Amino acid sequence: MSQTANSLPHTPLLSAIDSPADLRKLSVSELPGLCDEIRRFLIHSLADNPGHFASSMGAVELTVALHYVFDTPYDRIVWDVGHQAYGHKLLTGRRDLFCGNRKLGGLSGFPNPDESPYDTFAAGHASNSISAALGMAVASQLKGESPRRNVVAVIGDASISGGLAFEGINNAANTPNNLLIVLNDNDMSIDDNVGALNSYMAHLTTSRVYNDIRYKAFKMLKKMHLVSERRRGALLRFNNSLKSLLSKQQNIFEGLNIRYFGPFDGHDVATIVRVLNDIRDMQGPRILHLRTVKGKGYAPAEKDPASWHAPGRFEPETGRRLGAESAEGAPMKYQDVFGHTLVELARKKPEVVAITAAMLSGTSVSLMKDAIPDRTFDVGICEGHAVTFAGGLAKDGMRPFVAIYSSFLQRAYDHIIHDVALHRLPVTFCIDRAGIVGEDGATHHGAFDMAYLRTVPGMVIASGRDEHALRNLMYTSLEEGKGPFAIRYPRGMGRNPHWRNTMQVLPVGRGEKLADGSDAVVLSIGPAASDVAGAIERARANGVTVAHYDMIYLKPADEAILEEAVDKGCPLITVEDGIVSGGLGGVVAEWLADRGIQRTLVRLGIHDEFVPQGTPAQLKKMCGYDEDAIYEAIMNIKTSPRQ
Amino acid sequence: MSQTANSLPHTPLLSAIDSPADLRKLSVSELPGLCDEIRRFLIHSLADNPGHFASSMGAVELTVALHYVFDTPYDRIVWDVGHQAYGHKLLTGRRDLFCGNRKLGGLSGFPNPDESPYDTFAAGHASNSISAALGMAVASQLKGESPRRNVVAVIGDASISGGLAFEGINNAANTPNNLLIVLNDNDMSIDDNVGALNSYMAHLTTSRVYNDIRYKAFKMLKKMHLVSERRRGALLRFNNSLKSLLSKQQNIFEGLNIRYFGPFDGHDVATIVRVLNDIRDMQGPRILHLRTVKGKGYAPAEKDPASWHAPGRFEPETGRRLGAESAEGAPMKYQDVFGHTLVELARKKPEVVAITAAMLSGTSVSLMKDAIPDRTFDVGICEGHAVTFAGGLAKDGMRPFVAIYSSFLQRAYDHIIHDVALHRLPVTFCIDRAGIVGEDGATHHGAFDMAYLRTVPGMVIASGRDEHALRNLMYTSLEEGKGPFAIRYPRGMGRNPHWRNTMQVLPVGRGEKLADGSDAVVLSIGPAASDVAGAIERARANGVTVAHYDMIYLKPADEAILEEAVDKGCPLITVEDGIVSGGLGGVVAEWLADRGIQRTLVRLGIHDEFVPQGTPAQLKKMCGYDEDAIYEAIMNIKTSPRQ
Repeated sequence: MSQTANSLPHTPLLSAIDSPADLRKLSVSELPGLCDEIRRFLIHSLADNPGHFASSMGAVELTVALHYVFDTPYDRIVWDVGHQAYGHKLLTGRRDLFCGNRKLGGLSGFPNPDESPYDTFAAGHASNSISAALGMAVASQLKGESPRRNVVAVIGDASISGGLAFEGINNAANTPNNLLIVLNDNDMSIDDNVGALNSYMAHLTTSRVYNDIRYKAFKMLKKMHLVSERRRGALLRFNNSLKSLLSKQQNIFEGLNIRYFGPFDGHDVATIVRVLNDIRDMQGPRILHLRTVKGKGYAPAEKDPASWHAPGRFEPETGRRLGAESAEGAPMKYQDVFGHTLVELARKKPEVVAITAAMLSGTSVSLMKDAIPDRTFDVGICEGHAVTFAGGLAKDGMRPFVAIYSSFLQRAYDHIIHDVALHRLPVTFCIDRAGIVGEDGATHHGAFDMAYLRTVPGMVIASGRDEHALRNLMYTSLEEGKGPFAIRYPRGMGRNPHWRNTMQVLPVGRGEKLADGSDAVVLSIGPAASDVAGAIERARANGVTVAHYDMIYLKPADEAILEEAVDKGCPLITVEDGIVSGGLGGVVAEWLADRGIQRTLVRLGIHDEFVPQGTPAQLKKMCGYDEDAIYEAIMNIKTSPRQ
Repeated sequence: MSQTANSLPHTPLLSAIDSPADLRKLSVSELPGLCDEIRRFLIHSLADNPGHFASSMGAVELTVALHYVFDTPYDRIVWDVGHQAYGHKLLTGRRDLFCGNRKLGGLSGFPNPDESPYDTFAAGHASNSISAALGMAVASQLKGESPRRNVVAVIGDASISGGLAFEGINNAANTPNNLLIVLNDNDMSIDDNVGALNSYMAHLTTSRVYNDIRYKAFKMLKKMHLVSERRRGALLRFNNSLKSLLSKQQNIFEGLNIRYFGPFDGHDVATIVRVLNDIRDMQGPRILHLRTVKGKGYAPAEKDPASWHAPGRFEPETGRRLGAESAEGAPMKYQDVFGHTLVELARKKPEVVAITAAMLSGTSVSLMKDAIPDRTFDVGICEGHAVTFAGGLAKDGMRPFVAIYSSFLQRAYDHIIHDVALHRLPVTFCIDRAGIVGEDGATHHGAFDMAYLRTVPGMVIASGRDEHALRNLMYTSLEEGKGPFAIRYPRGMGRNPHWRNTMQVLPVGRGEKLADGSDAVVLSIGPAASDVAGAIERARANGVTVAHYDMIYLKPADEAILEEAVDKGCPLITVEDGIVSGGLGGVVAEWLADRGIQRTLVRLGIHDEFVPQGTPAQLKKMCGYDEDAIYEAIMNIKTSPRQ
């Protein structure tokens, strides 16, 4: 792209802010101008270097107001998920680094405590902010810190519907603390939001007149020194009764004994500053409800916020998306192959249902939603519920396909064991974003799924090397699956424009020989097979012949292949897009050890570390399992004196 | 005990019930008598063959009423956790089998779909009933079943505060279904209940007069055909406004658009039958709130329901507990060693805080609660929140010790990765009930923790062989721990009455040699060391000498020990109270394979299966890692031609 530093928008206010201390020198009347500048900066920067767009655009005013009113970093802001924290990064000394956002070695796309003291906690997985912030608020209290340290959790309306957030609220309301929860309510998940709590919150807005009266009454009472901790309960009850009378609404949060303020216009920065100042020093947990617009300030994004969640590159003037269209006849992404196949299977069998946890478009379950809406369930950011709900459906005869990103499925580990595997219920886990995902970094890589799923008795775990195999595995799980069946596949483009094969069963526990050779044996699982093929090709050109088996099934593993591989008498290499301990590397090591067989074994994949952000190619190279690394491993073995 | 079948109480009504169809032949006026008989049967039976007592005593009327009104098993009852389901078992054809409750090969102490069609779903881990029942209700709807199949989730007030239950409610309220949620509210978890939702529900009861008026109004409206689906929203709003006026209370459930009925007296069986009949055929999700007394009908249990949750054997006439007192000078249970040690450490360092998820007495965190209440947090049945909250505390300088049962910690797998390990926060995971737990069976064995925790980068995993080692490891985590540190220990009695040693650091990643020998090497972790020692002793008597190493740390594993073991040139045996794939057996296999070293390796522990219920001794024998099995493995190796 031709967008370069010399075309940076003119942002005189923002350019003078190297830390929130500089921000606090501005007058309130200057803040709207600053918000405009932040938006222009974001549009300019993200048009060229893609990232999460619409969430941060919607959170500009609340970000400015929080840093204006609170004494960060002494006061803590805990961002939930963190899609909305770009403005926060710009205000906290990272403006000049923002061009490296999401790149290898650059700024994280999420708040990251290793990056800045202003980033207080891990973000990336939803709904953890209230629990973490409660921990900080309680720590401050136990340490008796003075001045009082304020802790603010900023959470979206989708994240707050996760069970973890509810657990946090339920405990925050019952533990002495001064936590402030800012609910950034844009009536959106990444897709449209779902769930009763969300409908509930949407209706809260309709009672704006009442809330305004109530807020003014509150301020008056405060001025008259009629508000005190002792009177809090009575005041809450009074308010709630009043509210019910005026608006015919309940307030759930006050039912849980958390003081509620709102809803306020989340784009009126002066109001937010005023309200935050009013409620900053109150005792006890509070919730401030702000209504915001996802994508605010950029017309194309306001119009279609779901597509603009992470739009890729675009032309800032027009909003034209760049590079999003795939060329005629190009391969499709794995997600769409999955979605189309799901529809095919669902059309064949009325028992098939689809479940997603707030990733309708991300997983392409949207294709099923369009085709067969009444058998498609978006349960919101509730991976645990998604799995247990699937267990209930399967128990009574349905065949659920649960599509969840690998790293998010970690939330449902127990539910997989207890609510599905224990009674061998036929649920198909479609594990999207398995393996390295790239720019989203450590919180989002699907590194662990094979290893932790392998601990589950009776779990079938499979990964195909291409789109045909993905389809065949989905078909197999439906035709042959007697219990839980996990199919993992990566983020991004497949390899084959002719993806729509005639589906066939891939017998459970049987792999496939892809190449023969006698100098080494490579065992791989999943799309890593193509890197293996490339490496083998190069080795062959150097006179080294390598056998290659696609295991297809991690569990049960194909013992005939393992025996054949061992019988060759040459070294073994395993390749997988995931952690090797407990993964395919673990399977082969344990199989050899159980039989007392000695072979040189080189295990390529992710080792015991959190993998940072970067392009998938960069990261696979870094972790040592890209085509080059596989080639080197082959050639090293050939020249090694061991064996 | 001398309680035998011939002293069975006289239960003429109960004895005539072989299935709920028989129950339905009774008149409503006979039901209180049946309830009495069930209670007498339970007292008689559980006095002799211990189990969960107080929960089932409190749920007798609701159990009878549910089977009386609903057409089970066509209609589905999903019990949450299932501690309360003994009455259900008695009414559904398992009265004569009840003497085998919780024994090897006998009835499960929890509902178990493999045991009876009346047991609809896995129970044991809390808060899953609403999600599972929703799945069944939706399945029925999708299949268009006629007659309509009713699905009832029965959940306690403690379980409903778990995040999974909230996720279920949030979705139930927003999905077309006819789910009935029965809230069995005894204001108790296993210990006292906690959390704002619980306080909220306690207050709901105070509005009994209002609720009664409201229920009568509802019935009248129904009779007058003024209640219809279309009018439901308006009616709810009307009701809520009325309620707020009369009782100054909010109703959270109706805020979430779930029709609420209650609270009613959960021991008035005729009322429950009447209400269930009234609301049975309604459309849409409903919640029926019953107030019950845990331990109802047995005075000692009503007085101290927490101790009578699972009282062990007792004298039915007096309530005197039998066999609970430990002899003077006998060892203490691991839990109490843990609890006392925690207090010692907390007295030394003000940063130490303790967290439990509703298992205050089970984990003996109660000792800390008594000693230092303001640094002790019982967060309720919220393992995920417990861990993330600990992450927040650790981030701001505290040193949390999180005590959670191994199998329940599965709920927090993602939270461990994302909210603790990713930023190397110093949280000590005290993994109680690790390994085989015995009579609670498959849902409760701590089989998986070593394997799934080993997937987590930077996690230290340790298990001491005795009480001294447990204390030393706790001390080590505090003195040396730089990040997440997991310490696992079993349920039940320790071995050493002199448990209070002077604590010392056990260097991270260093094991200990316990015996030398040259015919085989045993590597063990945790208290299994004593079974190994016994086996080695027996082998020595037969002229076979065996070296024994206590690894202490699974991760990082002691490579010096592994090298020393391998250098001996003899076969290796690993022993662990957990799954071998990915556990210690996995560690050693992978270590050997990575180095291309060939040794006969025999891996003892749990293999790829769910372990049933029984005594720990029975189960370890069955799984093949008790003293006998270790001895046999040693002798087999000695005589085996391999190697």
